[in-house]
Amino acid sequence: MISERILSTRTSRMGASAIREILKLLGQPGMVSLAGGIPAPESFPMDLIRELSDQVLVKYGSKALQYDLTEGFVPLREALSVELKNRGIVAGVDDIVITSGSQGALDAIGKICISPGDTVAMEAPTYLGAIQAFNPYGPNYVRMDTDDDGLIPESMENVLKTHTVKFVYLVPTFQNPTGRTLSLERRKRIAAIAQEQDVLIIEDDPYSALRFSGEPIPPIKTLAPDHVAYMGSFSKVLSPGLRLGYTVAPHLIGRWMTLAKQGVDLNTSTLGQALAAEYIAGGHLVTHVRKIIDLYAPKQKAMLEAMDAHFPSEWRYSRPAGGMFVWAEGPDGVETETLYHTCVARKAAFVPGKFFYTEKGEGLATMRLNFTMASVDQIRWAIHVIADAIRESH
Amino acid sequence: MISERILSTRTSRMGASAIREILKLLGQPGMVSLAGGIPAPESFPMDLIRELSDQVLVKYGSKALQYDLTEGFVPLREALSVELKNRGIVAGVDDIVITSGSQGALDAIGKICISPGDTVAMEAPTYLGAIQAFNPYGPNYVRMDTDDDGLIPESMENVLKTHTVKFVYLVPTFQNPTGRTLSLERRKRIAAIAQEQDVLIIEDDPYSALRFSGEPIPPIKTLAPDHVAYMGSFSKVLSPGLRLGYTVAPHLIGRWMTLAKQGVDLNTSTLGQALAAEYIAGGHLVTHVRKIIDLYAPKQKAMLEAMDAHFPSEWRYSRPAGGMFVWAEGPDGVETETLYHTCVARKAAFVPGKFFYTEKGEGLATMRLNFTMASVDQIRWAIHVIADAIRESH
Repeated sequence: MISERILSTRTSRMGASAIREILKLLGQPGMVSLAGGIPAPESFPMDLIRELSDQVLVKYGSKALQYDLTEGFVPLREALSVELKNRGIVAGVDDIVITSGSQGALDAIGKICISPGDTVAMEAPTYLGAIQAFNPYGPNYVRMDTDDDGLIPESMENVLKTHTVKFVYLVPTFQNPTGRTLSLERRKRIAAIAQEQDVLIIEDDPYSALRFSGEPIPPIKTLAPDHVAYMGSFSKVLSPGLRLGYTVAPHLIGRWMTLAKQGVDLNTSTLGQALAAEYIAGGHLVTHVRKIIDLYAPKQKAMLEAMDAHFPSEWRYSRPAGGMFVWAEGPDGVETETLYHTCVARKAAFVPGKFFYTEKGEGLATMRLNFTMASVDQIRWAIHVIADAIRESH
Repeated sequence: MISERILSTRTSRMGASAIREILKLLGQPGMVSLAGGIPAPESFPMDLIRELSDQVLVKYGSKALQYDLTEGFVPLREALSVELKNRGIVAGVDDIVITSGSQGALDAIGKICISPGDTVAMEAPTYLGAIQAFNPYGPNYVRMDTDDDGLIPESMENVLKTHTVKFVYLVPTFQNPTGRTLSLERRKRIAAIAQEQDVLIIEDDPYSALRFSGEPIPPIKTLAPDHVAYMGSFSKVLSPGLRLGYTVAPHLIGRWMTLAKQGVDLNTSTLGQALAAEYIAGGHLVTHVRKIIDLYAPKQKAMLEAMDAHFPSEWRYSRPAGGMFVWAEGPDGVETETLYHTCVARKAAFVPGKFFYTEKGEGLATMRLNFTMASVDQIRWAIHVIADAIRESH
């Protein structure tokens, strides 16, 4: 019998996550879940993808089915180079690495940067998938404070002065889990700190295209191009099932990411990349994202209106201008994990926020609410259930 | 400036490989390359894939484009469960993990099994992609002897007695690079040794479906099911660009592979998996593989005939009953790397065999010849060029 003796020491940092265990409860029939973190299936351009599949097999022929360059399919990188310009990011084909989802980029960054015991700076709270990608490589995490405007620059500065940090990981726009967006002023300050301290920032940006109102804020990448690895994704603007992400990083980082990726998957699905190339180059990205926004914005509005109507006044919550999440925080003493079990028994679910922190004891009174998966009516109903549970718990 | 200070210690084992450097020479126009390791583009079922793309988008709808289970799309695992039965492998849906190519499986195995300094036993010569997957995790390699019938069981036994080995890595059928196939007798002996020594065997099997003659030999997995992680791939029987592999491993290994994969890519392209599911379930795998064999067998025949006619009699070479490669070995003193440069100058290429060994100084007189990418006429011409260069070098 092959026993646990065979496992690497690394696996001690890779166990099943507590959040997965708790979310297993959501499989019950009739559950209205605001706990998801995934796009609405009705946001996928089904007919367009059928059309594009045909098109790419005609246009690229067998090339769309063959092994391809590890760094990515050239027509996709060409299309992205143009698209990134709209965000103010200057990136030639050779500056872009395609990965299997942003998850693939996070894994590569972890592999090439983190020696066991190295320190990585993370927002509190932060994106769980990043922790999952980095953990096997053995980092220690140091937390940085955030508020309604996202990461607090002084906290980052302080962390960099007191720790030797390999990189800073951020989701600056419509963050998962909080929905918060870093203000332009803070972006400028953070870019300046990165340059002064010569530290790499991982700017993970899967949500910024899903802006419901207001003006886009430039990526930190545009403010400190030599100190930022900027990551984008097709998961929220086309299809997560295609598993397509991309990174624009300083040359040294991009080159090593490619070497790491060679050992992990050789290249990302060529067919998927060809589809994405046509999606951008054909102008479909721009038109389809508008449809996704038209789908999500009313759901978010319904959620915030229901919260305004039913949540106790001492609760605070974000009012993001886009993305997929609202973040709520109760007064001291509230434990959202207890609330979670009450609500799940009544068929409404959210994610207790404590799971998004790298340190135990933080975020006990917080919750993440997703508005992409449920219908407007379901959202209203679930918020009502959650609000009732909150009141009863007082 | 982000400097090399940011790199993990792991990157010292991940540099650009010497073989990639040498193969860069092959980009010149007019080169006839027998150096490739990839399937012929004309082996891809283009029309069928166009048909199946439409079919899966109708059949599975948005599910084909959504995030999916890390362990793999259920319809694909169901189809594989049936298909594996034909190879004598008993695997339920829960015993199968889908990965992004077999490369993804090798990465996951490396991640969950290899602590820095652990020993991994490899055939001499062995598959380079495995070395590339394992290297970042810091293994030491111990070599095992091979001959025309593949791995010599006594060498494996001896290695296991003298080393604490985490696992044994093998390509038992139509091996890359040698094309050799492990005999049934040896498989039985190796299975018995694995059981006696309680060691895990990684049985990497991308080529066995490409059998031109003779009867299939059962996988080692069928002889020692609890001690073998069996890996298959769609790269040689459908399309490498889809990046689809699968593993049937002991439960402990499969479970940890899934946890590792969560951090690396969340799941393999759902659309690609759906395509592969329909490819198998629709009976296309069986009929299409026959076409691939009809394409490759005459090419191999042309190669072997040309070698019989032109190679000096003191050269030995394999006569594989399938796969993609022929392996040739010259007498002592021959250096195929020198030959390589002579041949490339004349626009014919192969891979010097020394690159497939984990130890320096081995395989200097060997070469790998691929017969899938060039035409029959090109193969005859290139073999002639190589044979001439050999004779001149004496």
